[in-house]
Amino acid sequence: MNNYKLIIQYEGTKYNGWQKQIKTENTIQGKLENIISKMLGENIELHGSGRTDAGVHAYAQVANFWADTDMTPQEIRNYINVYLPKDIAVISVELAASRFHSRLNAKKKTYVYRIHNSDIPNVFERNFMYFYPQKLDVELMKKASIHFIGEHDFKAFCSNKNFKKSTVRTIYSIDIIQNGEEIRIIYTGNGFLYNMVRIITGTLIEIGAGKRKEDEIDYIIQSKIRENAGFTVPPEGLALLNVEY
Amino acid sequence: MNNYKLIIQYEGTKYNGWQKQIKTENTIQGKLENIISKMLGENIELHGSGRTDAGVHAYAQVANFWADTDMTPQEIRNYINVYLPKDIAVISVELAASRFHSRLNAKKKTYVYRIHNSDIPNVFERNFMYFYPQKLDVELMKKASIHFIGEHDFKAFCSNKNFKKSTVRTIYSIDIIQNGEEIRIIYTGNGFLYNMVRIITGTLIEIGAGKRKEDEIDYIIQSKIRENAGFTVPPEGLALLNVEY
Repeated sequence: MNNYKLIIQYEGTKYNGWQKQIKTENTIQGKLENIISKMLGENIELHGSGRTDAGVHAYAQVANFWADTDMTPQEIRNYINVYLPKDIAVISVELAASRFHSRLNAKKKTYVYRIHNSDIPNVFERNFMYFYPQKLDVELMKKASIHFIGEHDFKAFCSNKNFKKSTVRTIYSIDIIQNGEEIRIIYTGNGFLYNMVRIITGTLIEIGAGKRKEDEIDYIIQSKIRENAGFTVPPEGLALLNVEY
Repeated sequence: MNNYKLIIQYEGTKYNGWQKQIKTENTIQGKLENIISKMLGENIELHGSGRTDAGVHAYAQVANFWADTDMTPQEIRNYINVYLPKDIAVISVELAASRFHSRLNAKKKTYVYRIHNSDIPNVFERNFMYFYPQKLDVELMKKASIHFIGEHDFKAFCSNKNFKKSTVRTIYSIDIIQNGEEIRIIYTGNGFLYNMVRIITGTLIEIGAGKRKEDEIDYIIQSKIRENAGFTVPPEGLALLNVEY
């Protein structure tokens, strides 16, 4: 039994997220599993490194599946790409160690959130940046971001109120880069709760817009109450950049 | 009567081109004229610098209209942008000299054609680059491009066989830039015939792929026969970069 590791790119705009659902077939995992299962003539389960929400993109989502086949990894990649819609592509397929699991072995994940801080909408990047016309103070956002670094209980930054498992996560770094009218916030951590990146980003935006103060953040984290944190920014600005093992 | 000059950006993917048509309303000019006419309460005619075909983009299309209004140029820009779909945006509105006409006064136009020369499709740029998997020899394409520079009768590079006016045009420069898997061909000329950029690009691609020789070009130009030239590349790689006056 071979274990195949895939690197996958997608624009999430038209999909109901990564994870397959019973109600809808319009998921990235669903599209891929259908093609791989047809290719191999058996039902294949594809394990992703984690879900991405509806409208969220990935530059390098990682997934794996176990199968017996004579096809080479490159033949598998080319076959899948022929049948995928144009907003999903398999960048690489390689043989992995037999015990490798894309979700269970993930050590670090990096996400980027892109903000278009301008009074003129950007036609070409509209599906990849959140258009926020009010001028943001990036220096205030950088100072504020430091409060999130480290191991914290991020319950206040999770949309799923019934989440039973631990809400403790570690953020290793938050880099905020301004390039003309674009602000990129790059988060690296050992894992992220449901909507955690989008709620932290919303909180940072409210600070940059002068609607909140930096010194509220420690209190919000300690309160563990979602309503104390900022708004959930929309999905189009978010992309999974990479997964480390 | 004021004369307003607009700079317009659009992703052409979903439109039947710039120019309004009787059959379909789905044109960029049509969308803009409807909004401007409603804004001012009278039928406004918007003059573009030239048409772009279905699926072709613009980074800086220029257009103008004459009207009497108390609105400032910035108020006009902001009003139009509120009602435009997200794949069209007005970048600027300014007052122009009363006789300025975006088409009649255009002196130079620059187009870019983007090719994605790779065996893996690009998810994020799929609507902005032509995916051409066969390896292209860019040095051959650069040498071949020199034959097109200058004033020529480009009848062999025009899709409209019933075009009654002069098919003589001047190309000032063709720059071919390779950046990783992307090849950009930038054309500047005093004007371009229907599909001219796309047919020259198809001919250059056939040369880069080894299907044609550089020394055929002069013969093709002199023949004035469309069938002698290369294929018409698809519209998604093409964008109007700017118009000079």
